Amino acid sequence: MSNSTTGKVIKCRAAVAWEAGKPLVVEEVEVAPPQANEVRLKILFTALCHTDVYFWEAKGQTPLFPRIFGHEAGGVVESVGEGVTDLQPGDHVLPVFTGECKECRHCKSEESNMCDLLRIDTERGVMINDGKTRFSKNGQPIYHFLGTSTFSEYTVVHVGCVAKINPAAPLDIVCVLSCGFCTGFGATVNVAKPPKGSTVAIFGLGAVGLAAAEGARVSGAARIIGVDLNPDRFETAKKFGVTEFVNPKEYNKPVQEVIAEMTDGGVDRSVECTGSVQAMISAFECVHDGWGVAVLVGVPNKDDAFKTHPVNFLAERTLKGTFYGNYKPLSDLPNVVDRYMNKGLELEKFITHSVSFSDINKSFDYMLQGKSIRCVIRMED
Amino acid sequence: MSNSTTGKVIKCRAAVAWEAGKPLVVEEVEVAPPQANEVRLKILFTALCHTDVYFWEAKGQTPLFPRIFGHEAGGVVESVGEGVTDLQPGDHVLPVFTGECKECRHCKSEESNMCDLLRIDTERGVMINDGKTRFSKNGQPIYHFLGTSTFSEYTVVHVGCVAKINPAAPLDIVCVLSCGFCTGFGATVNVAKPPKGSTVAIFGLGAVGLAAAEGARVSGAARIIGVDLNPDRFETAKKFGVTEFVNPKEYNKPVQEVIAEMTDGGVDRSVECTGSVQAMISAFECVHDGWGVAVLVGVPNKDDAFKTHPVNFLAERTLKGTFYGNYKPLSDLPNVVDRYMNKGLELEKFITHSVSFSDINKSFDYMLQGKSIRCVIRMED
Ligand SMILES: NC(=O)c1ccc[n+]([C@@H]2O[C@H](COP(=O)([O-])OP(=O)(O)OC[C@H]3O[C@@H](n4cnc5c(N)ncnc54)[C@H](O)[C@@H]3O)[C@@H](O)[C@H]2O)c1
Ligand SMILES: NC(=O)c1ccc[n+]([C@@H]2O[C@H](COP(=O)([O-])OP(=O)(O)OC[C@H]3O[C@@H](n4cnc5c(N)ncnc54)[C@H](O)[C@@H]3O)[C@@H](O)[C@H]2O)c1
Ligand SMILES: [Zn+2]
Ligand SMILES: [Zn+2]
Ligand SMILES: [Zn+2]
Ligand SMILES: [Zn+2]
Repeated sequence: MSNSTTGKVIKCRAAVAWEAGKPLVVEEVEVAPPQANEVRLKILFTALCHTDVYFWEAKGQTPLFPRIFGHEAGGVVESVGEGVTDLQPGDHVLPVFTGECKECRHCKSEESNMCDLLRIDTERGVMINDGKTRFSKNGQPIYHFLGTSTFSEYTVVHVGCVAKINPAAPLDIVCVLSCGFCTGFGATVNVAKPPKGSTVAIFGLGAVGLAAAEGARVSGAARIIGVDLNPDRFETAKKFGVTEFVNPKEYNKPVQEVIAEMTDGGVDRSVECTGSVQAMISAFECVHDGWGVAVLVGVPNKDDAFKTHPVNFLAERTLKGTFYGNYKPLSDLPNVVDRYMNKGLELEKFITHSVSFSDINKSFDYMLQGKSIRCVIRMED
Repeated sequence: MSNSTTGKVIKCRAAVAWEAGKPLVVEEVEVAPPQANEVRLKILFTALCHTDVYFWEAKGQTPLFPRIFGHEAGGVVESVGEGVTDLQPGDHVLPVFTGECKECRHCKSEESNMCDLLRIDTERGVMINDGKTRFSKNGQPIYHFLGTSTFSEYTVVHVGCVAKINPAAPLDIVCVLSCGFCTGFGATVNVAKPPKGSTVAIFGLGAVGLAAAEGARVSGAARIIGVDLNPDRFETAKKFGVTEFVNPKEYNKPVQEVIAEMTDGGVDRSVECTGSVQAMISAFECVHDGWGVAVLVGVPNKDDAFKTHPVNFLAERTLKGTFYGNYKPLSDLPNVVDRYMNKGLELEKFITHSVSFSDINKSFDYMLQGKSIRCVIRMED
């Protein structure tokens, strides 16, 4: 199968970020054909994640503009580059910000998903094949973001970052699996692994934390304790199976002590989804001695230090971190999609808003105002 | 079966520590009969462990004297107190400094060995049944140590701290299973669980670290990297399967970097057996991202802080601590003894010295001079 566009430059609409913090401009760009081990995708639905906003604001990093953001999406393969055999035009896919080369020690390890070649790289704005961009406007290169750049009707992605999924799956819903949902859900089900009937604390009730709570719910946790500094999050979190709430600001003792008192010595599992190093320490220290496991998900600041008394470890507590919920994107995402298709996951409740592509800047407003969990952007609308 | 001594006070020899840091005095003491849930043991062999020396020196803790030290030992049940049904006179046993009540959440959990009732308590010098000692001399009470006090021909121990073992096992050898060996060996085989062919770093090559190395050896580790500040330990460690040595003092960069360079990014597993918080941090940071697991065993100082950048966790590293190698003393020790009997463990190489009871102070000298791994004390000699 091949499209009439195969091998040609495609002109299409993309939402270009020309400057840090300035509204995206939806305009025509040129998208070059895929090179070796690349595929060109037609994006149908994409969602906005905090990481897009963070790099668009460019407060913490070297700014790289003009750039096309976007990394949670669903689409269809338009054409494939040289050497691509696993995908063909028409395949339904989810592009992912991290990949699988299937050759490196990480890809060959059952435990790791941190591929040496295709591991997330927030600094890189070009394709690894030739160090250049596939996007341009009047000859000016436009940088990529996370190797996905899904805020474009067409985008070029390394084949190792494209998961082929069940074509019956609704892309306007499963698109959220590309980042936030899998990160939180996998942190619970793949890493923390709460036994049935256990007590789980979730620190941070944003999209990632709510997905972690969904993981605790499907694991059969008896108590799910949500911890957030923002009490507005509690009402939403009730719909996600969170049974109790703790706002650290309401106590004049460390929240780990509050939780230990609520739970006869500590929770069985905790999952930190905040990025605050203080929450990381609390999430670790609030697990029960003997068997407690704490999992870190949030991305900390550059010079944060995790600090605790080593005796907290000796008392048989475990601390782990996870990246993308320990999912291997190509190997595991098809199964997560099937789990949704078999009614084992409630993804719909994560999608609180939806806008047409021309209104993409509204999705930034919803997120910045804390109104949305996920806002899906309809590319063809 | 009952002995002529059942129910009576026994007069026997014990090595009494009258003052901190002063040689023990081997002299006659009185040992009261066991009360409810207690057993009186005839100790045949005991070994000296660092923890005895540490509390005998009493530099860090509230001194408690006169006291009878000793917690690595093998013996035979002389008589049992009210309600004891699991043991009877004549049983071969190993007393252990931590126990199993079989009723608490920890004992009921498959993961924990930190029994609420019988967990190690270094401060307590009395029996939990009545808050009194079973040892006395001319009416003056002599304190217990770790609930075991095996530097006495007879001692009284809570039934939950006495493991019944195969009577064919040589007590002069398996006595070392009561503490140091199981602590290090279990840290590797029960907690770090190195896969066959993996690379393991052991920090600290004392008795505990050498037992951890023995665990790596029986697990089929391909490379065992020993790390110690004291190069004298390297020659001994060769006999324990350690294949490479690193002395942090010989480098002007952190030892975790040295190890990462030796191992293409880090070891698969590390086990810290030093008590130094700096070694704990290095042991954690030297494991490979994606799958590395570090296990802490050493007992740190009161105001030490474990400090690392949280990104080291996010890169999918795991940090755990363990107590007594995660062995449940009553449930698991009989199997460890059988493993030795089936030639699956090389315990003999840990026993470098042996002295008669009257020479017990020599075992302190050997340890303080760093000459011994384990010195076994022959009680009947
Ligand atoms: N490891 C990964 O693979 C991965 C992937 C995506 C996102 N993330 C990270 O996950 C984290 C959560 O992402 P999100 O999109 O849900 O963010 P979010 O901002 O929507 O939610 C974070 C929540 O944490 C709360 N919070 C902040 N500090 C807190 C504290 N000290 N105690 C309790 N609550 C606190 C905030 O009030 C907020 O509700 C971020 O750090 C993000 O960078 C990690
Ligand atoms: N967790 C438990 O259940 C348990 C039980 C028994 C002992 N322990 C602890 O295990 C540790 C080891 O016990 P041991 O009897 O083998 O002690 P040991 O003193 O014989 O050996 C410790 C070794 O660590 C080395 N060392 C010290 N600092 C170091 C550093 N920064 N880097 C590298 N090497 C360093 C020393 O030179 C020494 O050779 C102690 O802290 C002890 O308290 C723990
Ligand atoms: Zn790879
Ligand atoms: Zn994201
Ligand atoms: Zn117990
Ligand atoms: Zn000991």
